[in-house]
Amino acid sequence: MTKVIDFQTDPSKYRHWRVEYDGPIANLYMDVDENAGLFEGYQLKLNSYDLGVDIELSDIVQRMRFEHPEVKVVVMQSAKEKVFCAGANIRMLGGAEHSHKVNFCKFTNETRNTFEAAEDDSGQKYIAAVKGACAGGGYELALACNHIMLTDDSTSSVALPEVPLLAVLPGTGGLTRVTDKRKVRRDLADIFCSIEEGVKGKRAVDWRLVDEVIPNSKFDETVQQRAREFATSSSKPDVAGGITLGPLDKKIGKDGSVTYSLVEVSVDRDARKATITINGPQDDAPADMDAFTAQGDQAYLLRLVRELDDAILHLRLNEMELGLLVFRSQGDPEKVQAHEALLINNKDSWLANEVLKYWKRLLKRVDVTSRSLSALVEHGSCFTGVLAELLWAVDRTYMMEDEFEGDNRPTAAITLTDANFGLFPMGNDLTRLGTRFLGEPEALSAAEAEKGAALEAEMANELGLVTMILDDIDWEDEIRIFEEERASFSPDAMTGMEANLRFAGPETMETRIFGRLTAWQNWIFNRPNAVGPDGALQRYGTGVRGTYNMERV
Amino acid sequence: MTKVIDFQTDPSKYRHWRVEYDGPIANLYMDVDENAGLFEGYQLKLNSYDLGVDIELSDIVQRMRFEHPEVKVVVMQSAKEKVFCAGANIRMLGGAEHSHKVNFCKFTNETRNTFEAAEDDSGQKYIAAVKGACAGGGYELALACNHIMLTDDSTSSVALPEVPLLAVLPGTGGLTRVTDKRKVRRDLADIFCSIEEGVKGKRAVDWRLVDEVIPNSKFDETVQQRAREFATSSSKPDVAGGITLGPLDKKIGKDGSVTYSLVEVSVDRDARKATITINGPQDDAPADMDAFTAQGDQAYLLRLVRELDDAILHLRLNEMELGLLVFRSQGDPEKVQAHEALLINNKDSWLANEVLKYWKRLLKRVDVTSRSLSALVEHGSCFTGVLAELLWAVDRTYMMEDEFEGDNRPTAAITLTDANFGLFPMGNDLTRLGTRFLGEPEALSAAEAEKGAALEAEMANELGLVTMILDDIDWEDEIRIFEEERASFSPDAMTGMEANLRFAGPETMETRIFGRLTAWQNWIFNRPNAVGPDGALQRYGTGVRGTYNMERV
Repeated sequence: MTKVIDFQTDPSKYRHWRVEYDGPIANLYMDVDENAGLFEGYQLKLNSYDLGVDIELSDIVQRMRFEHPEVKVVVMQSAKEKVFCAGANIRMLGGAEHSHKVNFCKFTNETRNTFEAAEDDSGQKYIAAVKGACAGGGYELALACNHIMLTDDSTSSVALPEVPLLAVLPGTGGLTRVTDKRKVRRDLADIFCSIEEGVKGKRAVDWRLVDEVIPNSKFDETVQQRAREFATSSSKPDVAGGITLGPLDKKIGKDGSVTYSLVEVSVDRDARKATITINGPQDDAPADMDAFTAQGDQAYLLRLVRELDDAILHLRLNEMELGLLVFRSQGDPEKVQAHEALLINNKDSWLANEVLKYWKRLLKRVDVTSRSLSALVEHGSCFTGVLAELLWAVDRTYMMEDEFEGDNRPTAAITLTDANFGLFPMGNDLTRLGTRFLGEPEALSAAEAEKGAALEAEMANELGLVTMILDDIDWEDEIRIFEEERASFSPDAMTGMEANLRFAGPETMETRIFGRLTAWQNWIFNRPNAVGPDGALQRYGTGVRGTYNMERV
Repeated sequence: MTKVIDFQTDPSKYRHWRVEYDGPIANLYMDVDENAGLFEGYQLKLNSYDLGVDIELSDIVQRMRFEHPEVKVVVMQSAKEKVFCAGANIRMLGGAEHSHKVNFCKFTNETRNTFEAAEDDSGQKYIAAVKGACAGGGYELALACNHIMLTDDSTSSVALPEVPLLAVLPGTGGLTRVTDKRKVRRDLADIFCSIEEGVKGKRAVDWRLVDEVIPNSKFDETVQQRAREFATSSSKPDVAGGITLGPLDKKIGKDGSVTYSLVEVSVDRDARKATITINGPQDDAPADMDAFTAQGDQAYLLRLVRELDDAILHLRLNEMELGLLVFRSQGDPEKVQAHEALLINNKDSWLANEVLKYWKRLLKRVDVTSRSLSALVEHGSCFTGVLAELLWAVDRTYMMEDEFEGDNRPTAAITLTDANFGLFPMGNDLTRLGTRFLGEPEALSAAEAEKGAALEAEMANELGLVTMILDDIDWEDEIRIFEEERASFSPDAMTGMEANLRFAGPETMETRIFGRLTAWQNWIFNRPNAVGPDGALQRYGTGVRGTYNMERV
């Protein structure tokens, strides 16, 4: 699996999904082309999916919000007979490297979270209309919808058969959503998760696994009726037309560097490091949201977030050995602030809201990226407002102090704005500064009092906004030592440490999915009972069950 | 490591710790005998510890509460020069099976939680008086204390060097307590956890890693002064004398069965199952707490909880392949209620309080036991009040319905008491019934309304208290099928599934330690970077660092 995985797609290229738009209702059909897997060696039978299927879904969910803001209800359904979705493709999983399995699960989790949050964030409600078998990752797709409807016939059921069948866990939030979202009683959840055949009919409602069960003969009609009801009762305002998300301006160099219009990713393979440079806006902010809408996908903050999102995904899946991601920026902080202010001042406008919510998702994607992350606040940088959030999404932040010889860029400064105090919650539902200052709530107020000021190194350090400030004499050495040290550590220990240190404070379903469920799944993905030659994943489809070491640990 | 590990000890057998009692202050000295490791192949240098050292500590913490209720402050300190504690012994870890590592970490975590909770539960406050190096598990010992004092000299520091040195995580709650208890700022925590040498002096206070730092010359004096201050300001009432915890009446049979005075553990190796039978009290409840105190460690509910505790630990460490633990009981439920009522009605008495808190700990130990758990509510059983908590600590509960041919025992019934509505919170701080009915809070009120009634099968089922009720015709078959099915599943998948299904709802530091931190550690304990032939754990002490696969997953 060494080919470069591209996360950019568009409707003209879809092989696995299609959408029919019907005013405020979008009918989303899963119709996986079994011969169009992302890699060789497996067929995507029974609407099973691989990363390629999920990249399309992610693209659809994204475009739904920018290109089709008129949509209030999305009905997710199968275009195949007798099967809704059989979940992640087992042969693909059986053949994949550990790292691919883990990254695959993370991306699918992010996509599930995105459409689950679409109702709260954008007023787009997802209905899962389940006809036929809905198993494993298929049921996890449904679980992430806001409403689950199940047809009442002999072949339609919901199931999480991973444990009995494959000796792994449902990998996309299934267990957590069963207990925490659906609030299924624990012993019933235990039964549900240990039977291959799943649960159907009235029992599925009684156990809280689905919201309603409907006779087969009335199913399609009732689903459309329910969609219309939800659309009618939706508080989402009517919006006429969206904006088009065109292809990104992106070039991958031979050395692995990636150049976008605003973002540059340079690669240092010896140091196992990628440096992500964000360039500030050239132009002034649009005068108003009409002007912003006219710019469409070329508007600075939308273009930037799309490029950053793609860069992070590219590095995650295609550059496994780059263990350290370094963020830096160059540009005019006042211009960044002006671009941001337009959105914040108009956040009731659908498009401003969507761009801000996209930033929320991008920042969360950074939070859960299993690489060591650092940021360099150099002279000439523009870490202000939403860009400054990156400084607290990373593990460490270094900032230039005083003049550097021969460097006549403007002195490094950080400016806090309203964006830093509530607009961009982390997965734990706190802001990044709130999480940072859990032990010292007074530090949060002190930082807020400095909103709008350009905070140079000493002040930023005093306020606790950066990890270390360094002058011309120490800057290069200190950073080199940190980077070399980081590159020498065991990547596994780093992943475990960072996963534990990054999310202090309260937990949410989201932090539990990324923090707890993922860790257990990663563990199981390393155990011979699942992935060994006699393990269940390898034996799947042979008719012989896995042979297990029966020791409990 | 196949010898039977015995969790029973007493002060006459201690090799690694000693306690000096000084009125309300206990000075607890760690003085590990390097030649008295639990297994062959390593020396316990520099106050490093293995499971044997921790079994003694656990015994001390327990006896402190029952035998020395006069103690209000415990000062944990080292009896060695220049070292407080070097943490878990690395050679022991390097040589141990994966399952032993995991069980070792779990037991040490439970012991840390027990002394950390001693202040709230029993008014016994723990001070860590740190002189000399305090690294890894050593600092984790300190972190679980209520107050950390560090001497200010060139050799005294606190450190979590596991990640840089050993490519594993601090395994006993370190990362979680750094972020969630000490609330260390995240980037400082990142630095702290990646430097081998740790942090000393004023910086340790500034970073919130310790509570105070004291010049070496005044350290011992200040520690004792602080202990006296805490004792004086303690709200714990003065108690004259404790009760003695004598040796358990315990026999291990050749077939692996274990017989205590009230608890029988029978073993079915083919079915990979241990059945734990609890016998109800023969005698009436003591008339009052004086009579209870006179019975001392022979009082029914104290004797029972000690035996159950030992049985669970025995099964965890010595019977790895018994994947299913089945709880059953036989006895007079009214007598159980009377014994329990005496404690609940006198819960302000120190001894009643200690017995109830011990039950709280035992039930939590059941909750986090990585085995499939079930309970059988048979005719003649006595699952009432505190014993009924076991029915919701397990994954599934089966209950007999109606008459069984040839069975003239009293009809199976469950009785709820005050014990089920607040006395025994789980790690997530909810009651077991509260957790069970997260999705249906009205079910909790309905159950509470039936307090005191003997609830037979149909009613228990209607109230949602049991998983399934079965009559004479189905009982044996259904249970056999469940047990066979369970025995056929991958133990790893069971462990992961149960860890995710058992703790719905809110998270606490405790659930994060057992749920999230443990899972990441288990994963790392399986990765070649840590445990492979070139991994850091194997290479430790050779002067050569681990060789790592640098791929990030």
